[in-house]
Amino acid sequence: MFLSTISAISFVQVAIASCAHGVEWIHPFSANIAPAAFSYGTTTGPLNWHNLNANNILCGSGTNQSPILLNTTSSLAPSGSITLNVPPVPNVAFENLGTTVEVIINGTLKAGDAAWNFKQRVSHCSRCATSYMLNVSMCRFHFHTPSEHRVNLVHYEAEMHFVFTAADGSAKITVLAFLIQIGPGSSYPFLENIFSHLPSIPNAGQTTQVPRVDMRGFVAHANQMSYYQYTGSLTTPPCSEGVTWYVATTPIPMYVRTYRNLKNTIGSNSRYTQSDLGQANILHLL
Amino acid sequence: MFLSTISAISFVQVAIASCAHGVEWIHPFSANIAPAAFSYGTTTGPLNWHNLNANNILCGSGTNQSPILLNTTSSLAPSGSITLNVPPVPNVAFENLGTTVEVIINGTLKAGDAAWNFKQRVSHCSRCATSYMLNVSMCRFHFHTPSEHRVNLVHYEAEMHFVFTAADGSAKITVLAFLIQIGPGSSYPFLENIFSHLPSIPNAGQTTQVPRVDMRGFVAHANQMSYYQYTGSLTTPPCSEGVTWYVATTPIPMYVRTYRNLKNTIGSNSRYTQSDLGQANILHLL
Ligand SMILES: [Zn+2]
Ligand SMILES: [Zn+2]
Repeated sequence: MFLSTISAISFVQVAIASCAHGVEWIHPFSANIAPAAFSYGTTTGPLNWHNLNANNILCGSGTNQSPILLNTTSSLAPSGSITLNVPPVPNVAFENLGTTVEVIINGTLKAGDAAWNFKQRVSHCSRCATSYMLNVSMCRFHFHTPSEHRVNLVHYEAEMHFVFTAADGSAKITVLAFLIQIGPGSSYPFLENIFSHLPSIPNAGQTTQVPRVDMRGFVAHANQMSYYQYTGSLTTPPCSEGVTWYVATTPIPMYVRTYRNLKNTIGSNSRYTQSDLGQANILHLL
Repeated sequence: MFLSTISAISFVQVAIASCAHGVEWIHPFSANIAPAAFSYGTTTGPLNWHNLNANNILCGSGTNQSPILLNTTSSLAPSGSITLNVPPVPNVAFENLGTTVEVIINGTLKAGDAAWNFKQRVSHCSRCATSYMLNVSMCRFHFHTPSEHRVNLVHYEAEMHFVFTAADGSAKITVLAFLIQIGPGSSYPFLENIFSHLPSIPNAGQTTQVPRVDMRGFVAHANQMSYYQYTGSLTTPPCSEGVTWYVATTPIPMYVRTYRNLKNTIGSNSRYTQSDLGQANILHLL
């Protein structure tokens, strides 16, 4: 089971690495990640990520690592800090990366004073380098089960991460995060729509197209929410720091059956809780 | 939040340690655990349990630690190995230990050739020592969210542990474990009954009585299930080894709202996945 996962991951790397140029330090399957990529198992799992590749050193030594414990005294972004805009788009790529499932989609985010842009990843790779040189960044969102952040020591069933790169061409990353709470009552149509395509990508390395994604209803809600804000890291190798996190204080709903399909596709992919910000890496306390 | 949890835990230790005599090496709040008891947070969390108390050394160095990854090739107990018997009982104690909620109840378990007995913990402590001298053991069951064991790298929403001590007076422990899968469809009445009393014990150190617990329906199902079987450890300090695990291959159902009440009371209390059995402790790989 474990070995077959690894070989599937290696395949993904070959299949999609070429399009990840310019953001390879955040993409889990870029050319800079060793063939035996990271996992959420044991020897290649979160406790050993720093040993898998020299680029991953911060996973084991960084002092501003994510995820962290949040609570009612955690810093909040000023009200109205977040302006997310994602127009409806056709033919959206939905990929099974082995460690998560990811949606590639256009949009913009204004967070505080900074404007972060993201642009649909082009499928023809000759344009990737150009986009990067023009400082055109990308957006994608992906999922974790269970949640990586915890609030008052309590986890949620899943967590959604919108990943943004800076419009100014710097390597700065912002992640807009939403905790997902399952229940029988409600879900967002865009999530139901996207996850209805999970049966097309059961295995790592598979990609499908969602004919149309319209998340304006969700975005309107998201722009009204309040957010915990802190500066941490990527929660996957290479665990780069300086990542601006906005974590919505309101969990978003998802149907149980949808969550179950998601969980059974991606498995557990939640990094263990890190030390409080600025404290020694938790692996240095051992 | 974190500090208040710690002080609540210290209170529990004082309040209930006297009744835990004889099994203090498995009871999370015995007199042998340091006042700053373990947690599922950061500095006193699972990665640091071995530093909290000299008794916890196996948490950081044991080579047969639990939980582990299970999969379709994991060893199964022979069919019919498990004969659980729990007669209906009145006035069952239901306790919030800070790190979990626990039910104290009578019953017997025959597992394979060995007979394991458990007996309702007496509330009058003058009898505790006698019980221990007579090798009368106890049973309790408690809960973890999310599940500690994973199957094919996938976690479940919760896990229930029935803890048994040996009838022969040895220190041997057996744990009968059930993965819990939430959904809208069904739940066991005994779980709904017990968790209807969660509002009476919102805080660590609180105890209530459930007027009557009848789990015969569940037990009848449990005795028909198949079980993964391995020898591992306690998943809480002091992480003692030589624990016989039976983990049901069939997850049991629970209503979403019941799970949510449970999770919000106990928080996340799942230990990280340990190395494969017989391999170096995962903290030694770092
Ligand atoms: Zn993520
Ligand atoms: Zn347990």
